[in-house]
Amino acid sequence: MLVYGRNVAKELLRKRKTISKIILQEGFDDKEIISLMEKCNLKPIYESKKEIDHLVNGVHQGIILTIPDYHYLSLSDILDKNPSFLVILDHIEDPHNLGAIIRTCEAAGVDAIILPRDRQVQINSTVMKTSAGTLDDVNVISVVNVSTAIEELKNSGFWIVGTALENSTDYRDIDYSGKIALVIGNEGTGMSRLVRESCDFVANIPMVGKTNSLNASVAAGIMIYEVVRNRK
Amino acid sequence: MLVYGRNVAKELLRKRKTISKIILQEGFDDKEIISLMEKCNLKPIYESKKEIDHLVNGVHQGIILTIPDYHYLSLSDILDKNPSFLVILDHIEDPHNLGAIIRTCEAAGVDAIILPRDRQVQINSTVMKTSAGTLDDVNVISVVNVSTAIEELKNSGFWIVGTALENSTDYRDIDYSGKIALVIGNEGTGMSRLVRESCDFVANIPMVGKTNSLNASVAAGIMIYEVVRNRK
Repeated sequence: MLVYGRNVAKELLRKRKTISKIILQEGFDDKEIISLMEKCNLKPIYESKKEIDHLVNGVHQGIILTIPDYHYLSLSDILDKNPSFLVILDHIEDPHNLGAIIRTCEAAGVDAIILPRDRQVQINSTVMKTSAGTLDDVNVISVVNVSTAIEELKNSGFWIVGTALENSTDYRDIDYSGKIALVIGNEGTGMSRLVRESCDFVANIPMVGKTNSLNASVAAGIMIYEVVRNRK
Repeated sequence: MLVYGRNVAKELLRKRKTISKIILQEGFDDKEIISLMEKCNLKPIYESKKEIDHLVNGVHQGIILTIPDYHYLSLSDILDKNPSFLVILDHIEDPHNLGAIIRTCEAAGVDAIILPRDRQVQINSTVMKTSAGTLDDVNVISVVNVSTAIEELKNSGFWIVGTALENSTDYRDIDYSGKIALVIGNEGTGMSRLVRESCDFVANIPMVGKTNSLNASVAAGIMIYEVVRNRK
């Protein structure tokens, strides 16, 4: 896959990750990156700004890299390892949110993150950047269908805890002991109907303002740390 | 100030905010926005994509609006209203973080957000977008110097609670009753030395992963909701 941006490039070069191609904008002069490339024996290809603008749709800062596609795990890979705390993303769209959620999961010791293959942002440059180098230390599972994955988790003894504003329980009043899979819904529409119906508990974070909504990665952070507190 | 993007435009038009100029890219065809503009009796100016690309440095989606500069409050405006829960941003750089923090503050009932005038992202298009319409319902205070503002808050009976990984207390073990001003540090460097030294308590959010860092808006969300829980 194509990734871009100077911070992402530095991280990949420092960690000596497999990089099959580096394209630099003519005149590129970031000395640190150039020195890191030399240490890795990587020879860049130079292209015009116009050519690079055509290749990616984002702030590339004059550098594009081709790296192997992200290796997602399957649900069975993880269930074999007897996990006890999973986070399920029910169609998160914003890469900044996905990156921040990955970072929180790594910090909180979540065993794996489950995300659907379609209508969900996948691991890309922005996710790599916002996950701040934590992507190597978390397990990300790709599933075809979230509801089917939830059924499988229930059969493995997981309690499914969703998040929604209405017909839900204060998040501080739920018992999170046992095997927990926490569902974070889409930024605009929340959890889908089927997923909501399969939840054992639905939690809400009380809000006193007019707008009644938190950023998805912030809500995920509050919920994940509530589970951590409860299981301490 | 110039703001851009279709969601921001729709919100401003729907709320009938003062808009002094709308520039659309030639061929712009978002029917909802065009209909909203007509309802507001606003006549757009059409420009080429190239011209619009020159005006703003971001994903403008073919629409730029000129609106009045954001009206920041002063510390004394707020202290007159006897606030009890403030959030101080010690040089947050990422507009997504500022937007998400504003949104959390609105939801949690924070009385005001204090941000420094320099080396800190100010209210802009991205902040407007990520704050999801909550900007009208929060108080944002601009100060010249964070340390001076903290001194003023201490003189008004506030306890200053900072956040840092080292030499700090588990965030769940701090008493947040009384007047609390919570300090959220810069994404990369955390709180500045002077600000840290002026804190009455410094909290940490325990982490078990390798990377030991949370996104600033996620950390702010966890801390803000801890204060809310403690004061319930």
